[in-house]
Amino acid sequence: MLHPDRLFPAEPTTRAVARRLYERVADLPIVSPHGHTDPRWYAENESFADPATLFVVPDHYIFRMLYSQGVALEDLGVPPRAGSGIRIEADRRKIWRRFAENWHLFRGTPTRMWLEHAFETLFGLDAPLSAKTADFYYDTIAEALKKPEFRPRALFERFGIEVIATTESPLDDLRWHRMIRESGWNGRVITAYRPDPVVDPDYAGFRDNLSRFGELTDEDTLTWSGYLAAHRKRRDYFKSFGATSTDHGHPSAATADLGTAEAEALFRRVTNGNTAPEDAELFRGQMLTEMARMSMDDGLVMQIHPGSVRNHNPTLFDRFGLDKGADIPARTDYVHALKPLLDRFGNERDLTIIVFTLDETAYSRELAPLAGHYPALRLGPAWWFFDAPGGMRRFRDLTTETAGFYNTVGFNDDTRAFPSIPARHDVARRSDCSFLAELVVTHRLSEDEAHETAHDLAYRLAKEAYRL
Amino acid sequence: MLHPDRLFPAEPTTRAVARRLYERVADLPIVSPHGHTDPRWYAENESFADPATLFVVPDHYIFRMLYSQGVALEDLGVPPRAGSGIRIEADRRKIWRRFAENWHLFRGTPTRMWLEHAFETLFGLDAPLSAKTADFYYDTIAEALKKPEFRPRALFERFGIEVIATTESPLDDLRWHRMIRESGWNGRVITAYRPDPVVDPDYAGFRDNLSRFGELTDEDTLTWSGYLAAHRKRRDYFKSFGATSTDHGHPSAATADLGTAEAEALFRRVTNGNTAPEDAELFRGQMLTEMARMSMDDGLVMQIHPGSVRNHNPTLFDRFGLDKGADIPARTDYVHALKPLLDRFGNERDLTIIVFTLDETAYSRELAPLAGHYPALRLGPAWWFFDAPGGMRRFRDLTTETAGFYNTVGFNDDTRAFPSIPARHDVARRSDCSFLAELVVTHRLSEDEAHETAHDLAYRLAKEAYRL
Amino acid sequence: MLHPDRLFPAEPTTRAVARRLYERVADLPIVSPHGHTDPRWYAENESFADPATLFVVPDHYIFRMLYSQGVALEDLGVPPRAGSGIRIEADRRKIWRRFAENWHLFRGTPTRMWLEHAFETLFGLDAPLSAKTADFYYDTIAEALKKPEFRPRALFERFGIEVIATTESPLDDLRWHRMIRESGWNGRVITAYRPDPVVDPDYAGFRDNLSRFGELTDEDTLTWSGYLAAHRKRRDYFKSFGATSTDHGHPSAATADLGTAEAEALFRRVTNGNTAPEDAELFRGQMLTEMARMSMDDGLVMQIHPGSVRNHNPTLFDRFGLDKGADIPARTDYVHALKPLLDRFGNERDLTIIVFTLDETAYSRELAPLAGHYPALRLGPAWWFFDAPGGMRRFRDLTTETAGFYNTVGFNDDTRAFPSIPARHDVARRSDCSFLAELVVTHRLSEDEAHETAHDLAYRLAKEAYRL
Repeated sequence: MLHPDRLFPAEPTTRAVARRLYERVADLPIVSPHGHTDPRWYAENESFADPATLFVVPDHYIFRMLYSQGVALEDLGVPPRAGSGIRIEADRRKIWRRFAENWHLFRGTPTRMWLEHAFETLFGLDAPLSAKTADFYYDTIAEALKKPEFRPRALFERFGIEVIATTESPLDDLRWHRMIRESGWNGRVITAYRPDPVVDPDYAGFRDNLSRFGELTDEDTLTWSGYLAAHRKRRDYFKSFGATSTDHGHPSAATADLGTAEAEALFRRVTNGNTAPEDAELFRGQMLTEMARMSMDDGLVMQIHPGSVRNHNPTLFDRFGLDKGADIPARTDYVHALKPLLDRFGNERDLTIIVFTLDETAYSRELAPLAGHYPALRLGPAWWFFDAPGGMRRFRDLTTETAGFYNTVGFNDDTRAFPSIPARHDVARRSDCSFLAELVVTHRLSEDEAHETAHDLAYRLAKEAYRL
Repeated sequence: MLHPDRLFPAEPTTRAVARRLYERVADLPIVSPHGHTDPRWYAENESFADPATLFVVPDHYIFRMLYSQGVALEDLGVPPRAGSGIRIEADRRKIWRRFAENWHLFRGTPTRMWLEHAFETLFGLDAPLSAKTADFYYDTIAEALKKPEFRPRALFERFGIEVIATTESPLDDLRWHRMIRESGWNGRVITAYRPDPVVDPDYAGFRDNLSRFGELTDEDTLTWSGYLAAHRKRRDYFKSFGATSTDHGHPSAATADLGTAEAEALFRRVTNGNTAPEDAELFRGQMLTEMARMSMDDGLVMQIHPGSVRNHNPTLFDRFGLDKGADIPARTDYVHALKPLLDRFGNERDLTIIVFTLDETAYSRELAPLAGHYPALRLGPAWWFFDAPGGMRRFRDLTTETAGFYNTVGFNDDTRAFPSIPARHDVARRSDCSFLAELVVTHRLSEDEAHETAHDLAYRLAKEAYRL
Repeated sequence: MLHPDRLFPAEPTTRAVARRLYERVADLPIVSPHGHTDPRWYAENESFADPATLFVVPDHYIFRMLYSQGVALEDLGVPPRAGSGIRIEADRRKIWRRFAENWHLFRGTPTRMWLEHAFETLFGLDAPLSAKTADFYYDTIAEALKKPEFRPRALFERFGIEVIATTESPLDDLRWHRMIRESGWNGRVITAYRPDPVVDPDYAGFRDNLSRFGELTDEDTLTWSGYLAAHRKRRDYFKSFGATSTDHGHPSAATADLGTAEAEALFRRVTNGNTAPEDAELFRGQMLTEMARMSMDDGLVMQIHPGSVRNHNPTLFDRFGLDKGADIPARTDYVHALKPLLDRFGNERDLTIIVFTLDETAYSRELAPLAGHYPALRLGPAWWFFDAPGGMRRFRDLTTETAGFYNTVGFNDDTRAFPSIPARHDVARRSDCSFLAELVVTHRLSEDEAHETAHDLAYRLAKEAYRL
C-alpha cells in the first residue's frame, strides 16, 4: 500500500526533485518536541493490549469519523464517564471489525495514511483493510504485540526517536518520568509544562487544583505572589525532568498586561468562585504574559495553542467526558489578541513564543506578518485538523512568502497515537520536500538550498526552536 | 469548443486517471435534489420563447457581469418592478447581440463553460460566440427552439434527469406539480418546502403571508400552536407531491432552542408588526429547530443556505426587485450559530441537516470539523459563486482531510437555468474526478477506490442524502 | 540565477503555453499607476549613494525579516526618530555584509526574486549572494552606481517605464514634480492625491495639517465648506501635475453618507481635538464618500487601501517611527463597510473605485461578488504581503470565477524600491501568464484569447482603469 513516491507531486521533473530531497531527510532521527504520548508506556514498557485498544479506542480522529456516520461510541469501546452507567462493547475484536467495515470513510484523510504506514511498516500488512481482512489484521497485530520488539521502548528505538516530549499538568508528580530516569534506559523522554488546570478559571476543578498546586509547592497559592512563586517552583521541577517548553491551550489568543495591583485584584476575583467569563478570559490572557516573564528567566519556550471550542457537544460530554472529538475550531484573532504580550516581550531576542492556529485565515493575514517582524515569535506547524498533506501545503503556501522558512519551527506530531509518529513525520517530510521541489523546478530556489532547507525543516529547526 | 479532456489536470498521468474515472460516471443519470427550475415548464411543456429569453434575461450570473461593466439592465430586457414605468429593450435579438459583444467578460467564469456546453451539445454551435457570430447563434437557437425535441420534457429526458426537485413556498398551491402528475408524463419532478415567506419576519408581506398560510391550512396561524400545525399540514401536502426536503435561506446560520413559553412570546412579538431585528433573527433561528423537530417526525431532509446579504443595492432593488445579482455573501459563523440546533438534534442518526456556505473560510475551520463529528450533519456542495471548478476544488481541498467524502452529499445544481443543468453536473463530475485522480497518482487512494468514490459523488450520495 | 522559465508551471505543456504567452508581453512598457518612489530622484537625477542605501536601508520587506531573526535595526542603518539619541551603524559595507549573511532567510519570498532580478539584470551579478560574495557584490554595485547609466532617469528609461505615479500629501508643494516638468526631460512622472494627513483625525499633526492645508489653498479649512473647497482646489492642483487618481489608506473600509448638517457637526467634533475613536472612523468614512463625489466632477480615480493596523509595535515606533515593518493586516469587512458609499455612487458608470485588501478571505466572499456587480467598483491587484507569485495566484483563483478578468485593473507595483520595479512587473506577468496557461491546457480558454487577456492584464487594463 505504501508507494515510495506517495505524496510527491505527479509531474515527473518535480517528483524527481522531491524524491532526491526526501532521500536525504527520510532517515533523520525524529525530534518530537510536542505531543501527548503517555510517559507510563516508556516507564513500564508493558506490551500494548490489543489492536483495538492500540489503534481505535484512544484515537479521536478515528471515533469522531465513525460517530459522524452513526456508529455509537459505546460500540467502539470508548470509555464513558465514571458513574454514567453506560455499558460499552467489551469484545475488542468486534470493535476492530466495526472499524474495518467503515474503512472507506477515511479515504482522503490523514488517518488513512498514518494507519496504512503503521500497518505495513510495523506488521507487514499490505492488503487493504476491509470487513474481509479485518480478522486477519486483528490476529496479525495481536500476535505481534505480544513480542518484545513491539513494546514501547523497542518501538521508540525502532522509530528513530532522538527525543520526545510529553505534556503534563503542574499537578502531575512526574512519577513516570522519574521511573524512566531511574530505569537506566537511555531513551530521551522529557516533559512539558501545561498549566491550564491551574491557569484557566473555567477548567473543571480549578479551585481544588489551586489547593493541590499549593500543597505540591508549599506556597500559598491563594495569594497572587504565592501563586506565581508556585509556578516558578513547578517550572523548575519540570525542567529537572528535561522540560524545555510550556504549553497553553486557551479558547482564544487573548493576552493581557496588567499592573500588579490590577492583576492581584483579578486573581482574587477568579479565585473567589463564580468567575465572570470576561474575568476568566482576562486572567488566562494575563497568565500568558506572566508565563513569558518567567520564560525570560528560566528559558522555557512558550507554546500557545488557541482557538478550539472544547466539548461542543454537551450530550456527548455528559456521557463520555473530555476529548471525544467534539472540539471545534472557531475564528481566532491574533493581531489584537497578542498585542499586550508582544508590546511587553515581542522584541526580546532570547524569548521564543511559538503560536499555532486552527483558523487558517490567520496564516497569511496575521501570523506570517507578525512572525516576520517580532523577534520573539515563531509559527508552529499546521496543527490538528491541518496536520495532513493539504493542511501542510496551505501552511507553507500562506506563510512562506511573508515569513520565510526560518520563522517556522519544523514539525511536531502533537499526538497521543504512538504508532502514528513515524508516519506523521514522514508525511511532513514528504510534504515539505514536495513544496521545496516546486520552488526548485520553478527556479526560485537552487537544489542545494532546497536540500539544506529540507534538512532544517525535518530536523534542525525543531531542535533549535525548542532548545533541545 | 468542448474538448473531451476539459478541466482534467494537465499532467498526463493524472489526466489519464481522471479520464478513466470520468468515463464511468459521465453518463450516469442526473439526480438534481435541489434547484429552482420552474415546474410550469414541465407542466405545460411549451416551447422556450427565444435565445435571449432562455439564456440571458433570467440568468443573474449573466446580467450581473454585464451590469458590472456598465450595461443597463433595461438594455438586457430584465423585467422591472410593476409600476416602475421603466421601459426595457423589447427586441430580443438586440439583447442577444449585447450579450454576444461582451462575451469576453466571461473568460475564466463557469458561466462561459455552462453556456458553451449548452451551445455545442444542444445546438451544434462550435464556433466561438462574438459580435460577428451573434446573429448566426441567435438564428440557430431560435430555429431549434421551435422543434418538439427542444420542449422542456424532451430536454428533461435528453439530459438524462432521473429526478429533479423544484423549490416552492408553503403558499404555493403546487398546481404545476399537480398538472405534471395528472399529465401521465413519467418524468420525476418533485417539490421542496421553502418556508422563508412565512418563517422570516423580514420577508416582504410576512403578515399577509401568515394569513394566507392560515387559509390554506385551515389553522389559526396567529397562534404559535396553530402556526406550527399549519407547517405540519403543509409539509405533508408537499410530501404528497414528492418533497423529501425543506430549504431555508437565512441571512445567518443562527439557531435557537427556546422553551415553549418563550417561543410563544417571541411569536407574538414577531406577528405584532414592527419586529426588532434581534427578534427576527431569533425567530428564524428558533424555526430551524422547529423544522428539525418536524423532520424527526416526517423524515424531510433539512437544507440550510445561510449567509447572503440580499438586495445589497437599494437603487437596483427599487427599480428591478429581488434576485438581480445584488446578493453578496458575508462572513458566516457556524460553530456558535448552529450550537442550539445541534445541542438538541445533532446526535440524531435519523435526521439529516445539509449545510451550505458562501464563506469558504468556514470549510476547514468549522464545517468539516462539525460534519466530521455530528451524525445529523452533512455538507452541501460548493454553492452559488463557488459552483465552479476552482470553487469545487477548494471545497474538496478544505473538507476532505477532516470530514472525508462521506459526510458530503454529492452535487446539486441549485439553478433556474434549465439548459445549464447537464453542463453543471458535467463540471462537477470532471472536477471530482480530477481531485480523485490526484489522490490516485500521489498514491493516497487506489484506482478501484477512486472509481467507487467517483460514482458515489456523482450519483449515490445525492440519492441517499436526499432520500430519493 | 534568473532562469528564463522561472515561475512557469512545471508541467511541460502548460509551461510551453505560459512561455508563449509571456513572450508577447515580456517587453511591453511598464505602466506603474500607483507607487511610492521619490519624485526627487527623477527631479535631481543624482546617483544613488551605495548598495546598502539603495537596497537595504529603505526596504521594510528586508529589514523586517532581518529584525524578526534578531538583527537590530540600528545595525542595519535604519534611521531612528530625530532626537532619539540612537546611534546607528555608519559603515555601509558592514550593513551590506549583515544582509548578505542572512540571505537564506529570504528563501521562498518575493524579496529574493526581486533582488536577484535587479542584481543580475542591472549589475550582471549571477553568483548567489552570501557572506562570501558580499564584498564582491558591494564593490560591483557601488562601482556601477557611479556611472551615468545608473542615475534615476537612465534607469527609468532602461526599465521601459511609460508612466509612473508617485503619491503625495495635499500638503506637498509638488516641487519635485515641478522641477521634473521644467527640466525638459520627457519621462512621464505624475503625482497622486493621498489626503490621509488632512482626512484622518488620528494622523499625527492632524490639526496643524489642517492649518497648513488652509494656507496652501487660501480656504478656511476649519469650516466644513472651506475644507471641502480646499480639497477641490488641491485636487485640481494635483491634476495639473498629471494626477489621475486619489489614494486612501484607512484602517478599515468603513464608509458613511451623512446629511450635510450631520457632516458639518461631525467635522466640528473632529477638528475640536480629543476626537472619539468612533468619530474618527466615521469621519474617514464620510470623506471617502466626499472624495467619490468630487471624483464624479473631476474624474480622478479612487483607490482604497484598507485594513492595516499601523505601528503594531510601540517600542519600535517610539524609537524608529513610521513604516518600519510593524504594520500588520487585520480582518476587514467590505460588504457592510462599503455599503454607504456604494448606495450613493456604486451604480455610476463614470466613476472608478479601486479596492485593495490585506484580508484574502474577502476575495471570493465579498470583493469578487461586489466587483462583479457594481459598475463603479474594480479590484486592485494582490497587495503588499501578497505581491508575490503565491499571493497573485490566490488573487486570480479567488476572484476570476466570480468577477472575471475585466473587473480587475492589471498590476501596480506599489513600491518605494525603485530597482525592484521591473522585477515586480515581470513576476506579475509571469504569474498571470501561468494562470492563463492553465486555463488554456484545461480547455477553458483558447490560446488566442489568452494572448489577448495577457496583454490586457500586463498593460491595457492599468492604463484604462487609471485613465492614463
